[in-house]
Amino acid sequence: MNHAAATPEEQEKLDAMYARMGELNLIPLWTQRENLMPDVPAPAATANRWDWQELIGIAQTAGDLVPVGRGGERRAIALANPGLSGNAFIAPTLWAAIQYLGPGETAPEHRHSQNAFRFVIEGEGVWTVVNGDPVAMRRGDFLVTAGWNFHGHHNDSGKPMAWLDGLDIPFQQQMDTAFFEEGTERVTDEATPALSRGERLWCHPGLRPLAFPGAQSSSPIPCYRWEHTDAALDDQLALEDEGFAGTVSPGHAAIRFTNPTTGGDVMTTLRTEFHRLRPAASTTPVHEVGNRVLQVFEGTATVTVADQTFTVATGDVVNVPSWQAWSVATDDGVDLFSFTDAPIFEALHLYRTYQQKGI
Amino acid sequence: MNHAAATPEEQEKLDAMYARMGELNLIPLWTQRENLMPDVPAPAATANRWDWQELIGIAQTAGDLVPVGRGGERRAIALANPGLSGNAFIAPTLWAAIQYLGPGETAPEHRHSQNAFRFVIEGEGVWTVVNGDPVAMRRGDFLVTAGWNFHGHHNDSGKPMAWLDGLDIPFQQQMDTAFFEEGTERVTDEATPALSRGERLWCHPGLRPLAFPGAQSSSPIPCYRWEHTDAALDDQLALEDEGFAGTVSPGHAAIRFTNPTTGGDVMTTLRTEFHRLRPAASTTPVHEVGNRVLQVFEGTATVTVADQTFTVATGDVVNVPSWQAWSVATDDGVDLFSFTDAPIFEALHLYRTYQQKGI
Amino acid sequence: MNHAAATPEEQEKLDAMYARMGELNLIPLWTQRENLMPDVPAPAATANRWDWQELIGIAQTAGDLVPVGRGGERRAIALANPGLSGNAFIAPTLWAAIQYLGPGETAPEHRHSQNAFRFVIEGEGVWTVVNGDPVAMRRGDFLVTAGWNFHGHHNDSGKPMAWLDGLDIPFQQQMDTAFFEEGTERVTDEATPALSRGERLWCHPGLRPLAFPGAQSSSPIPCYRWEHTDAALDDQLALEDEGFAGTVSPGHAAIRFTNPTTGGDVMTTLRTEFHRLRPAASTTPVHEVGNRVLQVFEGTATVTVADQTFTVATGDVVNVPSWQAWSVATDDGVDLFSFTDAPIFEALHLYRTYQQKGI
Amino acid sequence: MNHAAATPEEQEKLDAMYARMGELNLIPLWTQRENLMPDVPAPAATANRWDWQELIGIAQTAGDLVPVGRGGERRAIALANPGLSGNAFIAPTLWAAIQYLGPGETAPEHRHSQNAFRFVIEGEGVWTVVNGDPVAMRRGDFLVTAGWNFHGHHNDSGKPMAWLDGLDIPFQQQMDTAFFEEGTERVTDEATPALSRGERLWCHPGLRPLAFPGAQSSSPIPCYRWEHTDAALDDQLALEDEGFAGTVSPGHAAIRFTNPTTGGDVMTTLRTEFHRLRPAASTTPVHEVGNRVLQVFEGTATVTVADQTFTVATGDVVNVPSWQAWSVATDDGVDLFSFTDAPIFEALHLYRTYQQKGI
Repeated sequence: MNHAAATPEEQEKLDAMYARMGELNLIPLWTQRENLMPDVPAPAATANRWDWQELIGIAQTAGDLVPVGRGGERRAIALANPGLSGNAFIAPTLWAAIQYLGPGETAPEHRHSQNAFRFVIEGEGVWTVVNGDPVAMRRGDFLVTAGWNFHGHHNDSGKPMAWLDGLDIPFQQQMDTAFFEEGTERVTDEATPALSRGERLWCHPGLRPLAFPGAQSSSPIPCYRWEHTDAALDDQLALEDEGFAGTVSPGHAAIRFTNPTTGGDVMTTLRTEFHRLRPAASTTPVHEVGNRVLQVFEGTATVTVADQTFTVATGDVVNVPSWQAWSVATDDGVDLFSFTDAPIFEALHLYRTYQQKGI
Repeated sequence: MNHAAATPEEQEKLDAMYARMGELNLIPLWTQRENLMPDVPAPAATANRWDWQELIGIAQTAGDLVPVGRGGERRAIALANPGLSGNAFIAPTLWAAIQYLGPGETAPEHRHSQNAFRFVIEGEGVWTVVNGDPVAMRRGDFLVTAGWNFHGHHNDSGKPMAWLDGLDIPFQQQMDTAFFEEGTERVTDEATPALSRGERLWCHPGLRPLAFPGAQSSSPIPCYRWEHTDAALDDQLALEDEGFAGTVSPGHAAIRFTNPTTGGDVMTTLRTEFHRLRPAASTTPVHEVGNRVLQVFEGTATVTVADQTFTVATGDVVNVPSWQAWSVATDDGVDLFSFTDAPIFEALHLYRTYQQKGI
Repeated sequence: MNHAAATPEEQEKLDAMYARMGELNLIPLWTQRENLMPDVPAPAATANRWDWQELIGIAQTAGDLVPVGRGGERRAIALANPGLSGNAFIAPTLWAAIQYLGPGETAPEHRHSQNAFRFVIEGEGVWTVVNGDPVAMRRGDFLVTAGWNFHGHHNDSGKPMAWLDGLDIPFQQQMDTAFFEEGTERVTDEATPALSRGERLWCHPGLRPLAFPGAQSSSPIPCYRWEHTDAALDDQLALEDEGFAGTVSPGHAAIRFTNPTTGGDVMTTLRTEFHRLRPAASTTPVHEVGNRVLQVFEGTATVTVADQTFTVATGDVVNVPSWQAWSVATDDGVDLFSFTDAPIFEALHLYRTYQQKGI
Repeated sequence: MNHAAATPEEQEKLDAMYARMGELNLIPLWTQRENLMPDVPAPAATANRWDWQELIGIAQTAGDLVPVGRGGERRAIALANPGLSGNAFIAPTLWAAIQYLGPGETAPEHRHSQNAFRFVIEGEGVWTVVNGDPVAMRRGDFLVTAGWNFHGHHNDSGKPMAWLDGLDIPFQQQMDTAFFEEGTERVTDEATPALSRGERLWCHPGLRPLAFPGAQSSSPIPCYRWEHTDAALDDQLALEDEGFAGTVSPGHAAIRFTNPTTGGDVMTTLRTEFHRLRPAASTTPVHEVGNRVLQVFEGTATVTVADQTFTVATGDVVNVPSWQAWSVATDDGVDLFSFTDAPIFEALHLYRTYQQKGI
């Protein structure tokens, strides 16, 4: 509303009214409608790039200086979006952090309502123990730790290891849905098997154990191994070479990690994918409601978000704020891990995507 | 992590590390874990009470001083939770406002992704026009305006009218899912029928028009009339008198407004209910994940939220932050309208409730 | 396979082979493929018409000669499709019968896995008691008795009453899914209220009792009253007169009876509808997978099924076998009750419909 | 109803009434209630055993005498339940047949609404081509051909091959839902790859191609290979040995073949499983609504159905009629393929199971 024409007398009344509103814990819509209800999403978060070598470097320093243990719980360093007011949030809904565990160290068991995953850029030697089931972490592996399952990590090797943690901490913190409970100081099973028990039950394609019928709200697969992801992407590109459907677009193979009991996303708030681009390939720019994070697994690429372009190599992380068009192009080929909050918005019928025609 | 024992040399290294983290847009988990991941939800929002007479008074003042029209769009005054940093949010997910329309005034048509409803405490004479269907607003009526439907309001009477607007503006603003589009200046149908076309199609109990099969993501019922709500609550109490099941607990009748195409909530982000307590009745204290707003429709009551107690009468509004136990007691009987964000958390398997045993 | 060219020696071997197959409980596909796997459904059932006056007459005779009671359980006379080999089936999945209860008579309580409904063409005075809840039966009412609920009927009036029973007996008999259990000899509640308790809880449009959340596999509404059905159909035709959507096709109003906890069909195996045609209106011929039964509630019409045409008046019943095109035309207007087995085939992704273009 | 006490005059009236009912296509309920509505399912089908060596023998004879080709479509010989009136049905819902294809032969392409699968007891050399995708058939493999997909078979080897076909022909025949369409005479792709394209897209555990989102009504996996089934069962027994959950009961491992886009059954009408019993193990007797067929893949066992016991070895088939308790016991260990119609009854809320306590 335009009060420009207000007489001094009118202005006095208006001032008195707004002051009274303040006393009554009231705020008018008309002065901030466009901020609250923008024409298209106008995220406070900005697109940003984090350099993996810097992340690894600072994580090693923290490994030297900061013990891991009860209270702090994890030696995890969060990627903080510069637009989000000093919060440790890469996006309004998403948390991304580098976690670091030195030789012989243990991160104590706990559980929380937040959904979590780990993605391993490099290294091995740590086992994540989820509800007593030890899950080996190796390069390229994607591990699921859904909300309210006890879990800890222990490094059984002589070397430090670092990986990417992804969680819905910001969403649950802002939504006031977070619960937390401490578990044991040591992991409950210190065995170091090559495969977890969960994988042995659930990682046979299209087969499910008769003893565990019914849909589960999150994936019972503790770890999606790199060898399977790699083969799936190879197969899509080979099918493309043979002239058959399979890829998302020319030269662009991609898989989604899914909950085998539903065919849907691995967790109710997190969607996770792996993309592979051939040399000289690129993706089509797309606007999506919600937030996306990309991490290079191998290779180099340029990631364009709205009018910014980021050059990325192994381990680097870029985030895409809501509704900002993004695309990836590569000269020499690239493998990318990606996660989003799309399941939240799909569940609530708030999800939209848009691709400009003719592109 | 306790750095208390750090030597000056160690502290210097730590300081350098934290400074470097800041430069790299990184924030450690271990210094703020309990804030980000509390044992139980620790909402910033506080319980608060808004007085209806004050709301009406300030709305009338705004009616005198502030025009309604394009840009500001609505003469709506939001109830702003004192704990939420000056935002016009009654809860992190929910918006509640008093909207006021003078005789002959029109609030122009627009549409937005935000889900909205209206609840009428008193008065009549306004029609909300949703996708061209004029819906009369009368005392006790509950009107649905689901996201992305064009709608405007016009006052066809010689008197002003005010009502409660409820929306998911805060949720969509923080989640960056909001879209907005202007429509016509005047409502597209200025007719003033007693019943909307939507009601004539959808308000026959258990019957649906064959021409509109399938589930819809929000309710096709434009208005839930007071006469039906009142009768449903009366019937529950009468059944209780006759010795049969029907009420939620002794003396406590309640209905949920539902989407007849699914049996679920009227909109994907908002749950709406109506409660009636007999004289001398009270509800059982309950902790719920998510946010609740209560408005007295008629009668008086005391609302207890955690360790605060609010005395309320017709039109007064109280909010309940996440996981704070709440209950209502009344001496002379009370009718209460209530809305929550529970569908969001149910859809994501994040919903919990807790009632202390023995109460 | 054409064995026409078989030499006598070959034929001898063939004969021996087929004889051996018989001994081993084996049957070749190739001799009956077209029967087992027709190009389009080739139902054994035929379209047929039953005259309500004849049905009423024979039911009255049975009322005089045959007692109602334990063992036979019900004085119900089934409409037996002439194509279905002497079975008491109006269709391979559906049962339709006229049930008759004399003044003061009681049909004892029992329960069975079969889903059942009643539709009342004329008369009143009987209460069906479902799980102890007495449900008045009056002209035009549609009553649901879903599987495994105890129920009985008693005639509290001084006059006999007859109505249409619809069940999925043939489906459950052929599928071997049927369970049955006797209950009390007398109905468990002999009260004669105008409205059942179930209606008082569930028949407020769009409102559900908070005490009974969640989806139920069948409708909790015991009876869909004629006044509501009639009003819903009137409203559709009035909307059509006003130029708005609502009817299925010009002059053809129709509603589906639904389960308010899901928006879907009243029972998992039975779909039930009510159709009203204006004078001079007709429906579009349609092929549907599955079986349909039509009963005239009021008025006269011609029902065309494939190449047969039936003239029908109040109470007359016509069945439509699977995939046979059907339509209704009327000179003076007609009200029709209809039920089908479509939910079975929709649930199994076997449902299809087809309307010839240009009609 | 007991008419024993009828006087001659009464009997005359009764006879006249029943005669008139016959003329009007009417059948009373009271004379056949217990047949139509039994206390528990009373299947006409009986338990039976078919000997694989006999099946193979007669199939070879048919291979010599009967050509395969258009019209008959398949050289398939159905296992006909002795209780089902000469129909080629192993159960009221299920079809099981041995199909035989000689060296170089082709079974022409067609499609039908019936759902089908193949299970391979022995041999190899045939490719089933589904919608143009050639699927190799090898020992232990389970192949899905869901309804309305074009498919043919061709034998690319120098040897004949036989396998088990399972379909829902009886269900669709009785329900009048069957559609059929001829395709090409030759299979549309005569390539003989080790893995089908569908497997390459869909057989990576927990991973789905991003290019094919959403639920599909049947499994997109064309073939579940023996190596995966075998490994899954081995893993369950190994977990049991290690003291962890995984098996259905002691010594009894089992998997269900599932649709990876839903986690549910491979097709809407057919459930398929593989069971492995250790030496000296046995299953718990269970009553189930619906029909089950068991085929020994390897080993020997005794199958008990109600009060009958069948001794079975590799390839032998036994069926279990609805609600008849069944169990398997083995001395030397046994592998069993099994299929049922349970998805039909689960979808309609008609499914029940019962295990006697204390067993």
